Amino acid sequence: MGYFRGTLGIEVKADLSPVTVADKAVEAFVRARLAQDFPNDGVFGEEEGASGLDRDRVWVLDPIDGTRSFLSGYPTFGFLLAILEQGKPKIGVVGIPAMNEVYTGLGQAAALNGAPIQVSTQTALSDAILYIHEAEHMRAGDEAVLEKLTQTGATRRFAYDCYAHALLAAGHIDAVVDYNLQPYDYLPLCALIEAAGGVITDWQGLPLTLQSDGRVISAATPALHAELLEITR
Amino acid sequence: MGYFRGTLGIEVKADLSPVTVADKAVEAFVRARLAQDFPNDGVFGEEEGASGLDRDRVWVLDPIDGTRSFLSGYPTFGFLLAILEQGKPKIGVVGIPAMNEVYTGLGQAAALNGAPIQVSTQTALSDAILYIHEAEHMRAGDEAVLEKLTQTGATRRFAYDCYAHALLAAGHIDAVVDYNLQPYDYLPLCALIEAAGGVITDWQGLPLTLQSDGRVISAATPALHAELLEITR
Repeated sequence: MGYFRGTLGIEVKADLSPVTVADKAVEAFVRARLAQDFPNDGVFGEEEGASGLDRDRVWVLDPIDGTRSFLSGYPTFGFLLAILEQGKPKIGVVGIPAMNEVYTGLGQAAALNGAPIQVSTQTALSDAILYIHEAEHMRAGDEAVLEKLTQTGATRRFAYDCYAHALLAAGHIDAVVDYNLQPYDYLPLCALIEAAGGVITDWQGLPLTLQSDGRVISAATPALHAELLEITR
Repeated sequence: MGYFRGTLGIEVKADLSPVTVADKAVEAFVRARLAQDFPNDGVFGEEEGASGLDRDRVWVLDPIDGTRSFLSGYPTFGFLLAILEQGKPKIGVVGIPAMNEVYTGLGQAAALNGAPIQVSTQTALSDAILYIHEAEHMRAGDEAVLEKLTQTGATRRFAYDCYAHALLAAGHIDAVVDYNLQPYDYLPLCALIEAAGGVITDWQGLPLTLQSDGRVISAATPALHAELLEITR
């Protein structure tokens, strides 16, 4: 948080996504603690990559999910952490530092700052609050202008970061359709969504693993999930 | 804030946009105070419409900008207020209650919770942090799926509410391109952006008035503004 809305040292990766000093500092901090307390576990982080993925227990982390939010003073960025056992997500953590919120999921227990949360009871997609990653229609008649706009600027954003999934776990949003995610983006969501009573899979309805293609559906209920699968399949 | 993430009484307007009890309660509260303290002024609010637009001073307010955010627990919704004198915005206020932030602009003085703020010095669009309302490319190959998704759900969102403009005033975002706004959405931004040193006009470069078409460019510098105008014109 000391770097948020402050002076940033920005480095640009090959894919041109913005990376901040804070991003690296957070991952280095977590890795140092893991090396000390859990030296035999595997670790997979956005900044420093993967090691020991064949271990029984693997920690997966994204130090700052929503780097573009972070860079532009927008408070919805998060810290993501999953613990995998034999490749399956067992614990999920979504921290939203600018909001002083930590969402956690383990087994049947999901919580926001320690207080129990659960998903909504919404079963009809036609009534659902649905978050879709970067997918709105361009305004009729302005396509040419908007197309040009999306070709310019060094940093653009249209997304909701991990926060949408956390708000789904807390019952405020009914479904989220996402794509282009990395394992450190979606694996930390799994145990949280499931502990809160929701359903999270890929666009084919399969469980999310390290090998998934980065397309994700989170839904409050199986009925909603089934309706969305009909579209994504 | 008492209604945020709590139990909501939702009424649906003719255009199906969600309206909450909170929305109406806030506007009624402000209108009651104005009627008491400034009985001769005009008022234009989202919920109860316009009266006295021919008066020298007109208050323009949006009790909750970003109702869909508000409804889905997303903390970026705002309270907007402008004071117009002879039709020109003189004071602009953007409140972000969930963040405990109030942005104000009057003359040359822009502030966040009373502390001075100013726009960034960015002059090159190619380097700018640009927020575009609802305009990202659909992912190549998934257009059909995403098209269907945007036809479903009762509440969808892809926008940043008024907050993007406030963050521009505070120097975190360099430019915002918006459209489909109502006078109570864009007039409260004018005095704030200008007091912080930025430029705000419609897509033709004209000053924003009660009669504007709802298309807005906010930019930190005249150079950025000119680059964006070349695209929107």
